[in-house]
Amino acid sequence: MLKHFQVPDDIAVRVKIENLTAATKGVFLKMGVPEDDANVATDVLMKADLRGADTHGVSNMLRAYVASYGDGRTNPTPNEKIVRETASTAVYDGDNGLGIITTPHAMEIAIAKAKNTGVGMVTIKNSGHAGMMAYHALMAVKEGMIGTAYTAGGNSMVPTWGAEPKLGTNPIAFAAPTGTEEPFSFDAATTSIAGNKIGLANRLGHGLQPGWVANDDGSPDMEGAAVSDFSAGGVRMQLPMGSTRELGSHKGYSLGVMVDIMCGPLSGAAGFGAATKERRAHFVAAYDVEAFVPLDEFKADMDGMMKGLRETKPAPGHDRVVYAGMIEVETEAERREIGIPLHPEVVDWFEGITSELNIPFNLRD
Amino acid sequence: MLKHFQVPDDIAVRVKIENLTAATKGVFLKMGVPEDDANVATDVLMKADLRGADTHGVSNMLRAYVASYGDGRTNPTPNEKIVRETASTAVYDGDNGLGIITTPHAMEIAIAKAKNTGVGMVTIKNSGHAGMMAYHALMAVKEGMIGTAYTAGGNSMVPTWGAEPKLGTNPIAFAAPTGTEEPFSFDAATTSIAGNKIGLANRLGHGLQPGWVANDDGSPDMEGAAVSDFSAGGVRMQLPMGSTRELGSHKGYSLGVMVDIMCGPLSGAAGFGAATKERRAHFVAAYDVEAFVPLDEFKADMDGMMKGLRETKPAPGHDRVVYAGMIEVETEAERREIGIPLHPEVVDWFEGITSELNIPFNLRD
Repeated sequence: MLKHFQVPDDIAVRVKIENLTAATKGVFLKMGVPEDDANVATDVLMKADLRGADTHGVSNMLRAYVASYGDGRTNPTPNEKIVRETASTAVYDGDNGLGIITTPHAMEIAIAKAKNTGVGMVTIKNSGHAGMMAYHALMAVKEGMIGTAYTAGGNSMVPTWGAEPKLGTNPIAFAAPTGTEEPFSFDAATTSIAGNKIGLANRLGHGLQPGWVANDDGSPDMEGAAVSDFSAGGVRMQLPMGSTRELGSHKGYSLGVMVDIMCGPLSGAAGFGAATKERRAHFVAAYDVEAFVPLDEFKADMDGMMKGLRETKPAPGHDRVVYAGMIEVETEAERREIGIPLHPEVVDWFEGITSELNIPFNLRD
Repeated sequence: MLKHFQVPDDIAVRVKIENLTAATKGVFLKMGVPEDDANVATDVLMKADLRGADTHGVSNMLRAYVASYGDGRTNPTPNEKIVRETASTAVYDGDNGLGIITTPHAMEIAIAKAKNTGVGMVTIKNSGHAGMMAYHALMAVKEGMIGTAYTAGGNSMVPTWGAEPKLGTNPIAFAAPTGTEEPFSFDAATTSIAGNKIGLANRLGHGLQPGWVANDDGSPDMEGAAVSDFSAGGVRMQLPMGSTRELGSHKGYSLGVMVDIMCGPLSGAAGFGAATKERRAHFVAAYDVEAFVPLDEFKADMDGMMKGLRETKPAPGHDRVVYAGMIEVETEAERREIGIPLHPEVVDWFEGITSELNIPFNLRD
């Protein structure tokens, strides 16, 4: 499925990591973002491209971020600050900074608190798009901690039995350290499919699959709609994970509400009490493993569990079973060898913007 | 769907709450459980019956609990203790006590820690079945906190693309306080259906629905199997929430792994590194709302959100949209009026056991 949302090999332009990194950082600097913050933003985007989460990488997101700096929706030099805190908690005001910068900052606070009390939880308001949520969760893993990250915003999930959207795609990321195995790292929308993937499927010319969206009257589309039908609809009507009540859509819907609660009302962000579109907020947490059990014992248990999962006997038509994070690590290893595949249209955009902003980097080197 | 797992009205015996409560407590006392613990256990079971979670109530679980006390698997007088702790965390050893008793005890610890630091998280090992997980999450709500509770155990979830079970049904409960609206209270397995509901569907003579189980070779059963096919299989092969990879089963599978990690490796419980059947462990957490935002503002935002959700325009064939916890509160109000519906077979069992144990209570009063 991951391949479904990546640029086909026959048209992809393979770009060197150092070139894409430098060009991306150059764009952020030109937007007026200070160097430290530009480094963070670039790292978050590049990590998504490296791991194959192209929906959340440079190619799919940088244009939108540039637009939001350009029209003033996003503040390049925010005065980020903690507005309320206890030993294990904080509410972080992003002052309309970009979420891929404010959220790693908030996770650093969560990690510092977890070192003191065992747990750190930070809610984030007044912040833009937070990018690939796995990035933030994985920050904790580097410190021997379990990390989790949610983001809520937009209005595209139709509640079970409903006929209009009331929630965002509200993803949940969760990552935990291992010893010799790759870290467990899960990151997925609580809708049946991520919103960005619908956009990318459109760009790549794929149709929508059964179970992804609701029909205009709210009934689940279990046939698979044509691209044009959905695009023309105007309002995005995505089904919760589970797609229908019979298959468990009330679970995806409720997990989406959980994410909304932890990000919105728990940060005091505007708009969550009213189910409007004008809302975005995040939540990050770090749990120090050593606070619970010795880290080496935890890692040994994790290795046993992950090995047990990937050694599951496969069902017909599959040659292996994977756990969350495995394919992403394999993709990163491959892309570090042969570069990041970009759609030619994205390379064109990059050449335009770097030329316009007078950034001396060439992606085609 | 809830009705699907309840005793049909035409055969149900309506039992008075005080009679069922007294008889249930009497059974626990006869098992050698101290009075305080018997009160807790009875309250957890009765709350499930009151809320319509009949799978986790007296009728469906007490027999199993009695059997586990009888054969020594469960310890009626455990020496429960904290074996490791920090300001915000604890690992709780249940000494093989029943989970519906040890888990509320652990949640009390989590709540006390949350009052000090904003967050309390407790993992629980060496503990039996934890009952309706919403009970534990709702304990935090009474204190103006958000509560969450997971339990992992058994071996019935088949990983995506797999052909053998490697995880339990691993439910997630989450509850948050409100003002005038009913609390948001979610509690569901990360499989497409709870394990107990399959047993109950069998007892009530319903077949298995499409998307619930895997065929013998691991492929998802999207047709709906006959009861006897599944029962005869011996090994329970349940599909993760999402049912198929295309509909998002990797999400249910990964959330199930998340629950396993938080309950198992994070408590040091046995069996989790090896994906064996011999394992059970729990996780509870409380987040003090006041640590983040003023409780009254949070409740007002929650009321707005819950009202917005239940006022969603309904899809064809539905007369309303609900949020998690609404139907349970309505069921409790109804059952407090007219009593708890029990299957005649359950009443027979109760009469047998109360007579055998010399417990002077009559359910048919």
